[in-house]
Amino acid sequence: MQKIVEIHGFTRIRRVAPISNDTHGGRAKCLQRLIRLDLPVPQTVALSFDTVHRIAAGDMPDIAAVLKTFGDHPLVSVRPSSQDPDWGGPGAMLNIGMNDIVHRELVNSHGEEAANALYLRFVQSFAINVARLDPEMFDIDNGLGNDALSAALEAYEAETEEYFPQDPAVQLAEVLRSMARTWESTTARILRQAKGAPVDAGLGLVVQQMVLGVGPGESGAGVIQFVDPKTGAAQITGRFLGQSQGRDALRATTGAIYLTEDKRGVSLESKCPDLFQFLIDYGDICRNKLREEMQIEFTVENGLLHVLDAVRVHRSPRAGVAIAVNLAQIGVISRSEAVLRIEPHSLSELLHPQVDPIGKPDTFLHGIAASPGAAAGKIVFTSSAAQASEARGEPCILVRRETTPEDIRGMHSANAVLTERGGVTSHAAVIARGLGLPCIVGAGGMTLNSKEKSLRTEDGRTFCEGDIITIDGTSGEALVGAANMLEPGLGDAFQTLLGWASDVCDIEIRANADTPADALVARNFDAHGIGLCRTEHMFFENDRLTVMREMIFADDTDDRAAALERLLPMQRADFTELFNIMQGLPVCIRLFDPPLHEFLPRGRSGMRDLAEALGLPLSDVVSRVEELAEFNPMLGMRGVRLGITVPEIYDMQVRAIFEATAEVSRAGAPVIPEIMIPLVSAKKEVELVKSRIDALAALVRIETGVKFDFRLGVMVETPRAALRAHDIAQYSAFLSFGTNDLTQMTYGLSRDDAGRFMGDYVKQGVFAEDPFHSLDTDGVGELLRIGAQRGREANPDIVLSMCGEHGGNPESIAFCRNAGFDYVSCSPYRVPVARLAAAHLVLKSRVSV
Amino acid sequence: MQKIVEIHGFTRIRRVAPISNDTHGGRAKCLQRLIRLDLPVPQTVALSFDTVHRIAAGDMPDIAAVLKTFGDHPLVSVRPSSQDPDWGGPGAMLNIGMNDIVHRELVNSHGEEAANALYLRFVQSFAINVARLDPEMFDIDNGLGNDALSAALEAYEAETEEYFPQDPAVQLAEVLRSMARTWESTTARILRQAKGAPVDAGLGLVVQQMVLGVGPGESGAGVIQFVDPKTGAAQITGRFLGQSQGRDALRATTGAIYLTEDKRGVSLESKCPDLFQFLIDYGDICRNKLREEMQIEFTVENGLLHVLDAVRVHRSPRAGVAIAVNLAQIGVISRSEAVLRIEPHSLSELLHPQVDPIGKPDTFLHGIAASPGAAAGKIVFTSSAAQASEARGEPCILVRRETTPEDIRGMHSANAVLTERGGVTSHAAVIARGLGLPCIVGAGGMTLNSKEKSLRTEDGRTFCEGDIITIDGTSGEALVGAANMLEPGLGDAFQTLLGWASDVCDIEIRANADTPADALVARNFDAHGIGLCRTEHMFFENDRLTVMREMIFADDTDDRAAALERLLPMQRADFTELFNIMQGLPVCIRLFDPPLHEFLPRGRSGMRDLAEALGLPLSDVVSRVEELAEFNPMLGMRGVRLGITVPEIYDMQVRAIFEATAEVSRAGAPVIPEIMIPLVSAKKEVELVKSRIDALAALVRIETGVKFDFRLGVMVETPRAALRAHDIAQYSAFLSFGTNDLTQMTYGLSRDDAGRFMGDYVKQGVFAEDPFHSLDTDGVGELLRIGAQRGREANPDIVLSMCGEHGGNPESIAFCRNAGFDYVSCSPYRVPVARLAAAHLVLKSRVSV
Repeated sequence: MQKIVEIHGFTRIRRVAPISNDTHGGRAKCLQRLIRLDLPVPQTVALSFDTVHRIAAGDMPDIAAVLKTFGDHPLVSVRPSSQDPDWGGPGAMLNIGMNDIVHRELVNSHGEEAANALYLRFVQSFAINVARLDPEMFDIDNGLGNDALSAALEAYEAETEEYFPQDPAVQLAEVLRSMARTWESTTARILRQAKGAPVDAGLGLVVQQMVLGVGPGESGAGVIQFVDPKTGAAQITGRFLGQSQGRDALRATTGAIYLTEDKRGVSLESKCPDLFQFLIDYGDICRNKLREEMQIEFTVENGLLHVLDAVRVHRSPRAGVAIAVNLAQIGVISRSEAVLRIEPHSLSELLHPQVDPIGKPDTFLHGIAASPGAAAGKIVFTSSAAQASEARGEPCILVRRETTPEDIRGMHSANAVLTERGGVTSHAAVIARGLGLPCIVGAGGMTLNSKEKSLRTEDGRTFCEGDIITIDGTSGEALVGAANMLEPGLGDAFQTLLGWASDVCDIEIRANADTPADALVARNFDAHGIGLCRTEHMFFENDRLTVMREMIFADDTDDRAAALERLLPMQRADFTELFNIMQGLPVCIRLFDPPLHEFLPRGRSGMRDLAEALGLPLSDVVSRVEELAEFNPMLGMRGVRLGITVPEIYDMQVRAIFEATAEVSRAGAPVIPEIMIPLVSAKKEVELVKSRIDALAALVRIETGVKFDFRLGVMVETPRAALRAHDIAQYSAFLSFGTNDLTQMTYGLSRDDAGRFMGDYVKQGVFAEDPFHSLDTDGVGELLRIGAQRGREANPDIVLSMCGEHGGNPESIAFCRNAGFDYVSCSPYRVPVARLAAAHLVLKSRVSV
Repeated sequence: MQKIVEIHGFTRIRRVAPISNDTHGGRAKCLQRLIRLDLPVPQTVALSFDTVHRIAAGDMPDIAAVLKTFGDHPLVSVRPSSQDPDWGGPGAMLNIGMNDIVHRELVNSHGEEAANALYLRFVQSFAINVARLDPEMFDIDNGLGNDALSAALEAYEAETEEYFPQDPAVQLAEVLRSMARTWESTTARILRQAKGAPVDAGLGLVVQQMVLGVGPGESGAGVIQFVDPKTGAAQITGRFLGQSQGRDALRATTGAIYLTEDKRGVSLESKCPDLFQFLIDYGDICRNKLREEMQIEFTVENGLLHVLDAVRVHRSPRAGVAIAVNLAQIGVISRSEAVLRIEPHSLSELLHPQVDPIGKPDTFLHGIAASPGAAAGKIVFTSSAAQASEARGEPCILVRRETTPEDIRGMHSANAVLTERGGVTSHAAVIARGLGLPCIVGAGGMTLNSKEKSLRTEDGRTFCEGDIITIDGTSGEALVGAANMLEPGLGDAFQTLLGWASDVCDIEIRANADTPADALVARNFDAHGIGLCRTEHMFFENDRLTVMREMIFADDTDDRAAALERLLPMQRADFTELFNIMQGLPVCIRLFDPPLHEFLPRGRSGMRDLAEALGLPLSDVVSRVEELAEFNPMLGMRGVRLGITVPEIYDMQVRAIFEATAEVSRAGAPVIPEIMIPLVSAKKEVELVKSRIDALAALVRIETGVKFDFRLGVMVETPRAALRAHDIAQYSAFLSFGTNDLTQMTYGLSRDDAGRFMGDYVKQGVFAEDPFHSLDTDGVGELLRIGAQRGREANPDIVLSMCGEHGGNPESIAFCRNAGFDYVSCSPYRVPVARLAAAHLVLKSRVSV
């Protein structure tokens, strides 16, 4: 390998001496690859990050010496070349080297019009971008008038009190200095860091011999690519504009022609078939050799084709999948590489409808993008209004200060949710993700007036119940009126990619699914089972809620049992349906978890209704509600504590599970339900619940005559359960870490209350990230490691998993895989993301081995 | 050492062949010691636990053979001999061997009256305790009439259809079988287990030759001891009753005489001076050789003195201290042994006034004994009523459903507190212990009617505001009216004992003290400093609360600063006073911890008042209150989170601390304040707060010209802080484990809400003990161990301590000592208990070495 020859910090790009993305940036590297592939790339030199950095610091190399390599009257362009094109950078600058002398020469050789255009273009961009003069003064329509070039040169002179620089070396030096300094400005740094660039991200530059695109013969410039950027389907797109430079063809309102033959007008294909064929060939070369779909920027000078640049085609997530799959299917890349090319997070967008950016309505409010997708509907301010709206068949958006479990029915009825408070793991956000509902939370810029049923934004706009809005849960924007939607079309490529991902995964992905609808989504996404079925949501449906409340108000065990007796067939039906949908895949059912007071009304009027419904004095209802109220419901009488204190509830649920098991097993393949005990903090809790469950299993086996099996495990969500995992594992077939609650308890931080300062905390770097969004591997993760290790020590066969909100997060999946977990469980809509992330982990670990 | 000779399971107690408490029980062992000391103990044989157990199982030894050793016509008694006299056991049975023949002989030798009495006593107790006949039939006044003996024998015959057993061997066998079986009955087992006996606690029995106490010459029985059981002061007490047996003298309404010369009547001392002198000598022997104050049971038969038994004098806690100190001071035992003889828990009773058991009024309610001591006063139902009552100089009892920080002013004004809800670590309980206020919590047997200002008990009694009641926080009883009180008299012995304890302690004991009053108590109890000064209580005083609320309602930083500016001199005065009281001892000040909403009123009327006071519209107040409300305040915006988000509060506090430090240091010995940051969960929190504090310290040093030092540390009360102690220790001079919150978070259990099921949980054995009462060494303790180890690894000089409610608990102190902690901190009134417990640990570890 030949060494890079650097002269004054400039490197001539040749076939030999490989240029690295890490020293000279992606564009320089790509240009070298094009040169090696014999594409007609004009002479180019690259400036390394280091050189550019020194230029910014005032250390200018000998530009004249460099320019000499471009000839006596050099004309060059400069383009940025950073490590990642997404990190931005200065715009391209063309025609550097234009001065009065070259202008005169070009008038002779290319005609006055062409010469003027070339010089004017340079003067304009130099004046605006380098000399930082007022752009308006150099606008061709406003400021310059007919003799634009002279006017521009005069304007420059008037403003700077200097003649326009005539020395190409001075011109280039100024351009380079300007670009180098702009890159290091605070604004630019902040912008690129927001896109993930490191603090010390460098800028490379490429200086390239100009190909004019204007002048005699067939001259012009254009851009071509070979796939549709939205779908990824094979399709030649682009434009060509005669007598133009750079990417003018794309911006031109008139004169640009199609590339392929087109009914609408002239095409490059018909006009210059040979030239067109070259472009097609170059596309094939890029696809096969660069192993990517590239967009090629080309210029034709007097009939000769030059390739100035090629960049990876910008693409939608959907197109990304299609392109990767296609490249693998035609054998250009391996399946593994196709899988690795798709960023798991990018799939989220595919899985939900999106707002069509074309004709997108006004945004009236910004909030936290809590659950992706978009939906439009009429504003409602209460759950009952949402239900009424659903009954009328009218899509609605539920707007609340924050949601509580009482709102779940309303959320089921709504098409999207918008809350004033809360963070990404607030109640609204969690439930919405589970339901696949678009959701914005923490939209602090609005004030709700519940009496007048209206919301008011900070800039004074008011929206009333019934007004139509659109919630874009992907971007966190609330829009005025109904936006056009792009439906999710997963398509064959998506399924193919996930299949390939599946083939390499070494950790299972299950879904959190509470309802048959959830379970169906999980099945569609090929989840390996249900990792968390939260049964309590089942009790918020209207008829059941009434029975639940009767149970809560029961005077004695018998009355309570009678109420539960009525819930039993409903629960059994729930589980039967789930088992049927999941067709023998594991279903892990968490026993009843929330505090009972969540099932009681809060407001005065709700209590009055309840008193009427139960035929009780209002005072009884009020006092029962007060009695059950808690200071810290999160840390109160719920989960297994309720299971032990009011064991009838678990008894009913377990019986329902077993009866459903027997029923479904009798009809087909045997079901082995998994029963999970929530909020455990002591071994004895498991022991006590286990003994009742074992007894019930024996009973139902006798009653039904079906010999079913089941597995009992624990949801590890208190720090103590993790610390005492060796105790608990003695009675558990599995431990599933519930990282939502575990995070709350490890930090001493309620997710419902954290929203108020989490933003500040992350901004100030107190927490590196919101621990409810990104698993805190240092603290919570430490408990997971301790729990997993101790659990396994006591019970080597124990199945370990994570079922918190973090389950769908690629970083969390990596953690779980490292810790040797058997599966993670996440919202159904996150299953593909999780699957792909898991595949990445395997593939990357193979590479690194 | 001669081996015990066992015949048929019976062991003759002799000087040789030592008998063990573990095989034959305490009474048998003590009798052997008396024999060895040459006290005139009648012949005695002992039955081992094993023998008695076999008897209960139906395996009766050859009783006749044993009885032969007591002569031809044996008369014996049987008494229980368990490992611990507190565990109960059957009552003594006298005159076994009485039958018609012996009766006839005794009529001749001792006269008919004596013979009848002896026989009757045996028939009665045999009929009632062995044959289990109706006691009323054998009552001398009701059932038997004049010729009581014949009537008793006839009644026995009528009921059993058998003649009263005549064979002494049969009699003894029946007695032994009955006693053995009673011991193993369920009732007896539950009773003794409640007193701490193990499941397999054994019963020994001693069979002793009767000394009659009735008959010719000077005959009778009595009991003597040499100390006052209430105070422990030297004082001979007891009685002697002529012609009596056993402990009849103590029960006799007439005829019993005093022991020492007494103006009120005849005394043993005057009547039989020689005999009395023997008893005095025996007391001395016991004191010096048994090294204990003993109560001696003696019988005189025809002028001859016999010692039947001796037991450790029952004593009040105060007497216990006095006796132990006295024994050490006269050189009978060592100081260490004196210290070891006092159970730390027993001191609690000494430290507070107690209800006089004599004339104790009716108990109308039971609850959890949350803070010891007793107080009487008028019932009040609100904090304001308590303050009004205090203003009128009328003692009052604050009765609340539960208390909140808003009630603290009321608690300061009240003499005791009674709450319907809550457990031993509820807000009411914690604050009351801190204030040294008697307190009962979780008194679920009452219903409060806040409108009518009354409380109603389950049995229908109603108490209204103004009614006088007494709260006994030691027993958990609420009494009708004002009870007589016994004032705490700590006395010299108490101080002496604590001094001795202090001399051996190897872990420091600090006090949790929020107020000057607390600090004074801490000083009086010789605390090594203040381990936790909770500053927020300082803001609940009336004038300050208003300013606090102004701060909360401040529109901007300036307004907030202005309000805090007004609090600054008050806080400075607080700290100056604390530093002055503590005279250079360390004072650890915890920065502001609670959520701001605790300072806002809850009810509508309170909000109206506040709106008026602040000159704001009510709607503003309501919306601010709503805005600050939290789902789980325990896990919300408080502690360091507030310190970082609203840094002005900490700034003010820290400035106040430093200014007070400078002021006090200038006047005398330098003060080195300790500043503690609450609710830390991440290193960066400490880093941010530390940098502000360091800057303030530099500033105040310049402003005051005083070069003071300070120490900054962290209150470890989130699981994450413990897990990341190595990070946090880098910026901390000390780590103090706040086990209250740490327990809440480790279990995921709010102490305010746990009361509802904690009773059930402990009863069912789910939790071995209430973890808020007794440190959970398995779970929370594991975090303490992890935190201590990691903290020390990063910073070997770090000072470690525990400052939660558990700090005063002997078991927790043992834990902290094992973990190498530097100190524990507890409520001021617990300091002596903690000190004594710490001394025990040292002494016991020495013994075990």
